[in-house]
Amino acid sequence: MTVVALSGGVGGAKLALGLSRVLPPEDLLIVTNTGDDFEHLGLAISPDIDTVMYTLAGVANQTLGWGRQDETWSFMETLGTVGGETWFRLGDRDLAVHVERTRRLRAGETLSAITADLCGRLGVGPRVLPMSDDPVRTRVRTDDGWIDFQDYFVRRRCEPVVHEVAFHGAEAADAHPDFLAALADPRLKAVVICPSNPFISIEPILAVPGVRAALADCAAPVIAVSPIIGGRAVKGPTAKMMTELGLTPSAGAVAKRYAELIDGYVVDYADMDQVTAIGAKVTMGQTMMTTLADREALARTVLGAAGVLRRD
Amino acid sequence: MTVVALSGGVGGAKLALGLSRVLPPEDLLIVTNTGDDFEHLGLAISPDIDTVMYTLAGVANQTLGWGRQDETWSFMETLGTVGGETWFRLGDRDLAVHVERTRRLRAGETLSAITADLCGRLGVGPRVLPMSDDPVRTRVRTDDGWIDFQDYFVRRRCEPVVHEVAFHGAEAADAHPDFLAALADPRLKAVVICPSNPFISIEPILAVPGVRAALADCAAPVIAVSPIIGGRAVKGPTAKMMTELGLTPSAGAVAKRYAELIDGYVVDYADMDQVTAIGAKVTMGQTMMTTLADREALARTVLGAAGVLRRD
Repeated sequence: MTVVALSGGVGGAKLALGLSRVLPPEDLLIVTNTGDDFEHLGLAISPDIDTVMYTLAGVANQTLGWGRQDETWSFMETLGTVGGETWFRLGDRDLAVHVERTRRLRAGETLSAITADLCGRLGVGPRVLPMSDDPVRTRVRTDDGWIDFQDYFVRRRCEPVVHEVAFHGAEAADAHPDFLAALADPRLKAVVICPSNPFISIEPILAVPGVRAALADCAAPVIAVSPIIGGRAVKGPTAKMMTELGLTPSAGAVAKRYAELIDGYVVDYADMDQVTAIGAKVTMGQTMMTTLADREALARTVLGAAGVLRRD
Repeated sequence: MTVVALSGGVGGAKLALGLSRVLPPEDLLIVTNTGDDFEHLGLAISPDIDTVMYTLAGVANQTLGWGRQDETWSFMETLGTVGGETWFRLGDRDLAVHVERTRRLRAGETLSAITADLCGRLGVGPRVLPMSDDPVRTRVRTDDGWIDFQDYFVRRRCEPVVHEVAFHGAEAADAHPDFLAALADPRLKAVVICPSNPFISIEPILAVPGVRAALADCAAPVIAVSPIIGGRAVKGPTAKMMTELGLTPSAGAVAKRYAELIDGYVVDYADMDQVTAIGAKVTMGQTMMTTLADREALARTVLGAAGVLRRD
């Protein structure tokens, strides 16, 4: 494994796809946030794993930005008529993954083993690895008190003001041993922090004991990609949350958040004014990933930055 | 409650629908076999309850004879691609009921309470009641030993020769108290044994402790409808199983099977030759239910037979 990428959902998955297209599959390990995971309708749902998996399998729903393409909605439609909860939309195809994952978890398999098998069946080349097989659950403190992440994110559409974020279970979770082994591998060439929301996609990964230390000790440069372009998030509540948490929504403020952790930082050309404010060595690039070519180009930019920064 | 109907799936559901159209909803209690129930893909599936419920709600799939109309199959199609078991077909709409039922059972609700609520939401008038809230599981002994009912019925398409049928858990199950109360009610006018498979649809109900005695003691006549017409079952393995169990597949042989239990027996005009062989008082009618009018007509025939046989 020469590159380890830390990823949340949509934005992270886009760069993970770019990386998967410029690296041999055996050289890329995508470590995925599981803080968004939750049990819903009796099913074990792992939104970030699935977004990465569907994106790399080429079956992601481009229109929605989540779920699967060629999706149908009969289940959800009918669930409403029999009194089930419909605020979290589950497509009929997507549901197959949740049902099968839940069955296998109940049978005693680990989330990582199930993920590896599902990825294999869907034709995903690189390994997609949950940060931990133990449950970690992101919660946010709002004016209504602590609420579960999906309650905030989906049911309340990120509308509540967030005062604090916590990762329930993180302190007791074991980082996946293959994740730590990859970081400790002397052949490691780069760690990429994908342009995901720092507070709810990357920091749950960092909250797992041992991960920060392993990143500090690893032989390769750690390169983050800014999730903020020109003061705005491409998608999701990153900018809104930054403001609520007393930070300026800027590429520079995210870099500061990652300060001790990173050796390099990739920002968009739109954020040229941020460069001097950022301590880590900055690489400029186009971080908006609209097309597949954009994803590949950003992957090359990031790997280039890692090459420049190589310590050995 | 003036009429209690004992029902399995398809054939039973047809007559239950007929009864529901000629009786006020509050006068009809449909007690449903749960011996076919099983856990599959981590979901609690109750095929006979659902067939009765969908039939009475007007949403049953007429073409398939099971499941829901306007069904889509995206879940099943995708489940195959992620390595899930696909031998038991679950439509996307049908799945909503299984997921919601499973969630509510896990939350501690009873099958009967969930069934009542689902029926209410789907607009089913008469009460549909599982024979018991305790699990009863039909198994059949074949040349390969004892196998689960759905394994025999669906996966192996009723192909194995059946030597014996057993109802696992029946001896420890409690008949639903409302079932026993309805049978003990002095206002009861008729008990209808629907034209379902005696061995796998009706006898699981009779195997629950107290049910046979309650039927023997009830104030109303018990009228069975033959599931065999001219030596053949309308649908399903009834005739095949009878032969394998050493019985002649005939309306008369089914009547003998119910011998002590019934006061009246409705057979098709095609089985006129069986009449003298049957001890119970016979009513002739058209038992093949092709149209809705057929279902209503047979319901009237059965209720007429009960009226003739009224004991009070």
